[in-house]
Amino acid sequence: MRSFISFLLTALIGMHSISIAAQDLPKVDQDRLEKSILDLGKIGVDEMGTQRVAFSQADLDGRDFAIQLMKEAGLEVHIDLAGNIIGSLPGSNPELAPISFGSHIDTVPNGGNYDGCVGSMAAIEVVRVMKENGIQPRHPMELIIFSNEEGGVMGSRAISGKLPPSAFEVVNSTGFNMADGIDRLGGDHTKIDQVIRNKGEVAAFVELHIEQGGLLEQAGLQIGIVEGIVGLNWWDVTFTGFANHAGTTPMDQRQDALLAAAQFIQMVNQVAVDRDGRQVATVGRIKALPGAPNVIPGKVVLSLEIRDLAGEVIREVYSTIEKGAAEISKDSGVAIQFEELSTTGIPALTDPMIQKQIEASTNELGLSFQYMPSGAGHDAQDMALITPTGMIFVPSKGGISHSPKEFTTAEDMANGANVLLRTLLKLDKAMD
Amino acid sequence: MRSFISFLLTALIGMHSISIAAQDLPKVDQDRLEKSILDLGKIGVDEMGTQRVAFSQADLDGRDFAIQLMKEAGLEVHIDLAGNIIGSLPGSNPELAPISFGSHIDTVPNGGNYDGCVGSMAAIEVVRVMKENGIQPRHPMELIIFSNEEGGVMGSRAISGKLPPSAFEVVNSTGFNMADGIDRLGGDHTKIDQVIRNKGEVAAFVELHIEQGGLLEQAGLQIGIVEGIVGLNWWDVTFTGFANHAGTTPMDQRQDALLAAAQFIQMVNQVAVDRDGRQVATVGRIKALPGAPNVIPGKVVLSLEIRDLAGEVIREVYSTIEKGAAEISKDSGVAIQFEELSTTGIPALTDPMIQKQIEASTNELGLSFQYMPSGAGHDAQDMALITPTGMIFVPSKGGISHSPKEFTTAEDMANGANVLLRTLLKLDKAMD
Repeated sequence: MRSFISFLLTALIGMHSISIAAQDLPKVDQDRLEKSILDLGKIGVDEMGTQRVAFSQADLDGRDFAIQLMKEAGLEVHIDLAGNIIGSLPGSNPELAPISFGSHIDTVPNGGNYDGCVGSMAAIEVVRVMKENGIQPRHPMELIIFSNEEGGVMGSRAISGKLPPSAFEVVNSTGFNMADGIDRLGGDHTKIDQVIRNKGEVAAFVELHIEQGGLLEQAGLQIGIVEGIVGLNWWDVTFTGFANHAGTTPMDQRQDALLAAAQFIQMVNQVAVDRDGRQVATVGRIKALPGAPNVIPGKVVLSLEIRDLAGEVIREVYSTIEKGAAEISKDSGVAIQFEELSTTGIPALTDPMIQKQIEASTNELGLSFQYMPSGAGHDAQDMALITPTGMIFVPSKGGISHSPKEFTTAEDMANGANVLLRTLLKLDKAMD
Repeated sequence: MRSFISFLLTALIGMHSISIAAQDLPKVDQDRLEKSILDLGKIGVDEMGTQRVAFSQADLDGRDFAIQLMKEAGLEVHIDLAGNIIGSLPGSNPELAPISFGSHIDTVPNGGNYDGCVGSMAAIEVVRVMKENGIQPRHPMELIIFSNEEGGVMGSRAISGKLPPSAFEVVNSTGFNMADGIDRLGGDHTKIDQVIRNKGEVAAFVELHIEQGGLLEQAGLQIGIVEGIVGLNWWDVTFTGFANHAGTTPMDQRQDALLAAAQFIQMVNQVAVDRDGRQVATVGRIKALPGAPNVIPGKVVLSLEIRDLAGEVIREVYSTIEKGAAEISKDSGVAIQFEELSTTGIPALTDPMIQKQIEASTNELGLSFQYMPSGAGHDAQDMALITPTGMIFVPSKGGISHSPKEFTTAEDMANGANVLLRTLLKLDKAMD
């Protein structure tokens, strides 16, 4: 009986130790994380919003601020040849591939201070907490602040090997092209192939990010477990009718390119709405020529964007839209032509094992959650090409993003950082 | 019996004299008229079309050419304070108010050589024919080549007293504003009120013009008897939704201003098509903001134009469109606002007596005709405010206008000039 009771006691103490271990995991410092965000938020901001557009002086200033925080947190910091800021923490087993985590801090023009910034500042806070609590993972840890995320996930695309040389010509709103911009950040575009990493060189990648949509807030949930980043396909669609005098051309003698385009825009919306699922289709940009009030438009060019987590859904939606366009063209006498643009992205699914670890971490913290896709592109989508990847969402107030009105509460940011910390440590235990 | 036969013979001879007189009326010289057009057509033309935009050097050169022809035709030529070129022929009764006729020779950028030019060169040919055949009307005859017709019937608006001082600021594609332009043409904008004419100061006005549409050609008819110039009302319509991320905003959470605008454009077309009548409604210009492929448009501004011969039809069509917009706004959550612009024109009906004289002239010449509205604005619309006005159309090949492809055959031009000549002489007989 005594050995049995001993056994029971040992077992109970053992189990207690495990659960204490989980409960013992430190929490991030909510106020300190908020301060990092607010301090970063002072850099490059004017009355129109945050202007830390990649390559700008404000971006350089923001990067200097982040580098300073990273060094203070105990990271070895360097800038890679694509301009990504890399902070390294050695693991107890240097043979292992690193576990990487991070986000970005560059913004769109008139942007906000949470898109990318929450993930980046939370990553730094996670390192501080590990250091302060003597937590040394087995794997080397690598905090990455990717360069020029808003200009087409440039820094992460360079790492995944998907950045084509033609991208170097692209000029952003600062006036710098990508080649000069990379060099400005401390990279070297002529040697950029050297940053390419192959499968196996990174053990896993996890990114914390604001939702940039309103679903978590509307559902009253605290954490989003991202199933994947939707694929995005983008076309220019050209409508060719006949420009004619608006006064002398009877209604039944027109080949009005704008009327056909209007029918198209409605049809696109109907196709996306009618199909069960979470696909989205958008016409964001339109130009009618000649563009005079007294001339029937003879030509219209507009943009069409379709996004979904499944590539075959995108193709199906596109195929339905194409058929609808053929009908409109026949009825209206306006020719309709689709041109697929090369800046499109395939869906990037997150790793199911990492999804489960995020879920377990969320449960441990007693937070509410849902599984959901990411409708926006992220560095995680290119990291997913070379390593198992996970992504964690926190709510965006009002679903607003790319705007100075962007906001996430200090509590939500801390929740996300805590989930990130626990997920990284679970990964460290589980992976080779 | 002999006196009865005498009476009959006299009557018959008398009638025969009248009909011989009608048949004796000379015809214009088709080749000479064509030559005038082709010579004018060499002035100010480049590979994009005719560039005799009002106030340009090319316009000045074209005017010099016309003045030369007018003088050679025997007219006393002067330029009034609004820059209109006036050629005067004395009548046998100098007490009578003049009968005026003419058109314009300035063009739109990349324009053609027939719009306004046919009426202007035909008017000169009519004077030549009268002179060569010793025809002196009772009324003084006044050939007017109006200034800057394409810039909003400027010269004729000055004569009718409807040119507001605010118009002087308007800059056209030459870079000159109207005030400087008028002075450049030999007018004086500071004294422009002196060109205003009141009712009674002109006995009648007749304008020959190309149709600028395809109806005469399609119907195989030679002459259009214009019932009036349609009224034109013009609005800017603003759609206010909410700009949001195209990837993260589900389809059922959008306030897409461009989608609402697309529904509006279709509705406008439907209203104009469904209503019996010849009204036209057009959306020619559209701008969506922010105008990025990955952002749901939050704001759209487009132009709405409605034209009809009856002001109440325009108001009725507008009222129906307004109601339709209210429905769209309610369903979509997008606010829709109409702003009526001040550059609108009221319908200008032609004089029924003059219409009949045009018809009689057309019949005498054995030409086919139809009654029809003018969907385009003309100097005649402002002359109609101060004097009984008539307008004659000749066919436009393919209905094309405001294009270097503009064309009317020499035969059609001569037909129009002959109808113009006979109409003027009938007016001279009929009016005080």
